[in-house]
Amino acid sequence: MRGEETTKDIPATHPRHLSLMTRARLTEGVRQGMTSFDGLIAHGRGEAFDYLLGERTHDFALRSIEAATAHFLTADHPVISVNGNTAALVPAELVMLAELLDSPLEVNIFHPSPERELLIRDHLIAHGARKVLLSEKEVTLPFLDSNRRFVNSRGIYRADLVFVPLEDGDRCEALIRSGRKVITIDLNPLSRTAQTASVTVVDNIVRALPLLLDRVKQLNSFAQTSLHEILESYDNRSVLYEAERVLRGEEGLRNKRK
Amino acid sequence: MRGEETTKDIPATHPRHLSLMTRARLTEGVRQGMTSFDGLIAHGRGEAFDYLLGERTHDFALRSIEAATAHFLTADHPVISVNGNTAALVPAELVMLAELLDSPLEVNIFHPSPERELLIRDHLIAHGARKVLLSEKEVTLPFLDSNRRFVNSRGIYRADLVFVPLEDGDRCEALIRSGRKVITIDLNPLSRTAQTASVTVVDNIVRALPLLLDRVKQLNSFAQTSLHEILESYDNRSVLYEAERVLRGEEGLRNKRK
Repeated sequence: MRGEETTKDIPATHPRHLSLMTRARLTEGVRQGMTSFDGLIAHGRGEAFDYLLGERTHDFALRSIEAATAHFLTADHPVISVNGNTAALVPAELVMLAELLDSPLEVNIFHPSPERELLIRDHLIAHGARKVLLSEKEVTLPFLDSNRRFVNSRGIYRADLVFVPLEDGDRCEALIRSGRKVITIDLNPLSRTAQTASVTVVDNIVRALPLLLDRVKQLNSFAQTSLHEILESYDNRSVLYEAERVLRGEEGLRNKRK
Repeated sequence: MRGEETTKDIPATHPRHLSLMTRARLTEGVRQGMTSFDGLIAHGRGEAFDYLLGERTHDFALRSIEAATAHFLTADHPVISVNGNTAALVPAELVMLAELLDSPLEVNIFHPSPERELLIRDHLIAHGARKVLLSEKEVTLPFLDSNRRFVNSRGIYRADLVFVPLEDGDRCEALIRSGRKVITIDLNPLSRTAQTASVTVVDNIVRALPLLLDRVKQLNSFAQTSLHEILESYDNRSVLYEAERVLRGEEGLRNKRK
């Protein structure tokens, strides 16, 4: 156990409860074999950006959540891609999203490991998932090398929209180049994923996913024309511009020249 | 091995060679049991700040390295504190610094683990260290709880200056409150450690430590009065101010409003 905190050790009254719980969920994911070491480092990068964004959901993120919802509800075959970090952090929310959209969850990880893929699948099933797809060695995406190119023929391969939160830039780019829409959640508005996706939610996934679920429930009854209007008025560039402005110091410098 | 890269897999020609090597050294540190999971997350935070700083050593960092050197060469009992991240990243440089200053290395880690302490000590000895101190259960620093309060009577306990790169804010604060000078290396100029230390080198430890070693060799022959002049003209506040200015967007926003 290396003497580190688990989710059970963190009192609900702790001022940094959410951040510590999130971190503990990921380190538990590593101990269970789902989450990679590189996943922990990537999470640390996210923490730093979240810190600079004030650790709150901004208006620009709410606009992206609205557009993501409209995409989900107008797509023919939306698919939810799951990696070792999202499985550890928000398994129940991913399962609920899959239920609401009647979409498959598909395990897709950066570093090849059949064991990790099965552990992630079992973790999602333990959280109520009914359908979890794994990659097939004979089905590949173009524009990608490495393990990330293998996908499932009933999942990402036939999807017109893929939800790939906490993803790498190459993969996001390959999905876009192959004609798919991509929704991502990424705390770094400068990352290649953020820059490439159709809709980038610049927010902490732990805060954003419950908001996304609420929005999907609310907009579920909307007419397709209204959903298309939401999509037409959405501008991912301006979201990234505003996110970077906040990141670069909305509140001015905290260090003062003496 | 979880399918992740080791230092041997990374070609020297790769454009992100230093960053990938650094990451691989840390994940190897975890596999060897020296580095903690929380250490990986902390490294990710550092990566994000380094990215925003342009992944280069700025002038303000060179000024801090100069002041750190003057502190080292004027202190009576400088001590070098080593944790699981610094041991994995820069063991040879830490050993060389200890040799140049004729100072002890002292293992001090956040999460209590006698096994990890011994692994870190052995790793430093394998890199040529002659004297590595461990914490003693009967010797404690005031103003601290947890494992971090235990120190060595011949090391940090009697030190007037402690070098604590990549440290936590509580520990830095306790060392300062107990009357010691503290030199740190921290990529986040907003962190409590950065704000509290006597000298904060806002730079990547992998770039900064070789520069620090060079400076110690150069200033080693300087008169004490010249070294004191360097210290008198140094202003840590202005270093933090400049670092934050760069972090907040020296080069302007990269995302443009369309």
